Formats: sequence, structure tokens, C-alpha cells
Amino acid sequence: MHELELSKAFTLMEPGPVVLVTTHDGKHDNIMTISWTMVMDFTPVFAITTGEWNHSFAALQKNRECVIAIPTVDLLDKVVGIGTCSGADTDKFPRFALTPVQARLVRPPLIKECLANIECKVIDIVEKHNIVVLEGLAAYIDTARQETRTVHAVGDGTFIVDGRKIDRKKMMASKLPPGI
Amino acid sequence: MHELELSKAFTLMEPGPVVLVTTHDGKHDNIMTISWTMVMDFTPVFAITTGEWNHSFAALQKNRECVIAIPTVDLLDKVVGIGTCSGADTDKFPRFALTPVQARLVRPPLIKECLANIECKVIDIVEKHNIVVLEGLAAYIDTARQETRTVHAVGDGTFIVDGRKIDRKKMMASKLPPGI
Repeated sequence: MHELELSKAFTLMEPGPVVLVTTHDGKHDNIMTISWTMVMDFTPVFAITTGEWNHSFAALQKNRECVIAIPTVDLLDKVVGIGTCSGADTDKFPRFALTPVQARLVRPPLIKECLANIECKVIDIVEKHNIVVLEGLAAYIDTARQETRTVHAVGDGTFIVDGRKIDRKKMMASKLPPGI
Repeated sequence: MHELELSKAFTLMEPGPVVLVTTHDGKHDNIMTISWTMVMDFTPVFAITTGEWNHSFAALQKNRECVIAIPTVDLLDKVVGIGTCSGADTDKFPRFALTPVQARLVRPPLIKECLANIECKVIDIVEKHNIVVLEGLAAYIDTARQETRTVHAVGDGTFIVDGRKIDRKKMMASKLPPGI
């Protein structure tokens, strides 16, 4: 994994892929699958919607750190598996044959098998709306990976794989943030 | 456009497509392009990140209603054009040859050319984080449309078109909400 400039980390999230979020509760690492995410700032700042209904939420509240890991289509069955069992009774890294990698700035681990990872700290929890606001601290991308297509959850049990890319950089020039 | 059950409207947003949001400020309709969106609940509730930097924000604050319209890849140049000019000096419906259609429950119009439209009311504005929280009131889908592929903004001036769909309904059965 190579370090990615923080100013580019929001481009991993803006397309809206389903992501994995790792947490650490002081004793155990855990992983959840989330597709309710939003970019909020280029710096980067992200929102995720989660709450008491997720086992990971207690760890987020306590440790106030996480890693957002971006899986690709070849990992879809692990992503769905992680999203349909609970850290309350499952040790998800060994269960899904994923490799935790020590992060640089936070306690929860990166996931080696993912395309990209973003170390984050919790900067706010908007309890009224179950929104956790995250600031990205460091980002990494696996530039050697063959499969780079991410997956988008529809919410009905189906998923859409990334298709072709269209370039509108020239038309968008006036709106792109610095460093992009 | 056919009415879509409200319980399914979140599935239009969960994959994270770039969307158009129409507003009405008491005098004029306007349209903005947004990719910073998030599903927050199946009922449905959505978040969008916006603020004073968008001309549409004043209309959202005042009228507290909007329509989320879901464009497809054939509309990409209109979507980018709408996102790179301002309602302060541009009347966007005629400028981009889009057709406003009277909504049923809100004042801002649906966009006839889009794949789907969701009438929404603003239920909260979290000013600290520039988050506008929306509740969907009615949803419509154009079932006669040939092109149904949506587009995901990367944030660097490129866009990813929807590719193939993968079915994991069986694996996901325990997690799908009622009515899906």
C-alpha cells in the first residue's frame, strides 16, 4: 500500500462505494459494512450513519477512531458476509480471512486486501440523526492491485459494479479543489 | 413517470449517484448538482451537504422543500453544466432544455427527463456541519426509459457509469427492510 495525498482521499468516497469500517474497542478489532456514507469536505471530512443497532458503534463512541477500507468487486462476498453477522459473536478478521495491518495514527487496523484505506478520527457524533462525523488523517492505496472496480449497494440485496469512466475534467476545471 | 412505493425510494439514492436537486425560492425554480448525499433511513430520510456557497441553499432554508431528481448517463453534460453555473445569473431549466413538471406535494418541480424523482421536505438543517436532512414524501420512476445507468462523481472531474448488477438477495435476506 502506498500513501495517498490526503487532498485526494475524498475521491475514494465520493462515488459512493460500499465500504468496510474497522474499529477497536480496547480489546478487539471489528469490521462493519456500510453504504450510508457521505463526503462533507475535501479536507477530508466524511459522515457515516450508524447507531446503537451496530455493534461497532460502541467502539466508535469509546475509541473515537476508525479506518474506512474500500473493497473491490472480488471481495463482495466477504463484504456481504461482514454485513450480515455481528462482532458481538464473530471475530471477523479470521472469519473472513482478512489481514489486519497496523495503522500509523489510529488503533483500528487497515485491511490489507482492500484497494484503499483511510485512517479517521471521530470529530463529532450528531446523536439526533445517528451521524458520525469523521476526519481523514492518512490514506493509502494499493497501486499494484489488478481489480480496482468498487461496488455500490442498491439496498435491495443487489449491487452495481463500477463500469466505464468518463472524463469531464475540462468542463469541471472551475469547480475542482486544489491538489486534484 | 409512475409512482414508486416510498419504501423503495432509498434504493434510488443508496448506490450514491450524482443527483440534481430542484428548489423554489418563492419566485424562481433552480437546480443544483450534488454528489454529497447519504441515505439515513429507509422511511426514507436523506442527508445532503450544502451551505451558503450554493445559491440553492437560501431557497432550501426559506421554502424548506426540494425534489431530488436522478439523472442517467445520457444527461451527464447537462449535470456537469448545471453544477458549473449559478442560479444567481442562470435560469437553468431553459438553459439546459429540461422540463419542469408540477410536483404533487411540494413547490419545486420534478425534472421530466430524469429517471426518477423524489419529492422531499427539509426536516432539519444541522448548521454546524452544513447538513440538510430531508424526508422523502413521494417518489416517481420513468419505467419506459431505455437508459437507466446512473453516474457516480469521483470528484476529480471524472465520472463512473453503472456497470453490471450482482444479485446477493439470498445472502442479504436477514438485513433487508420490509417492503423491499
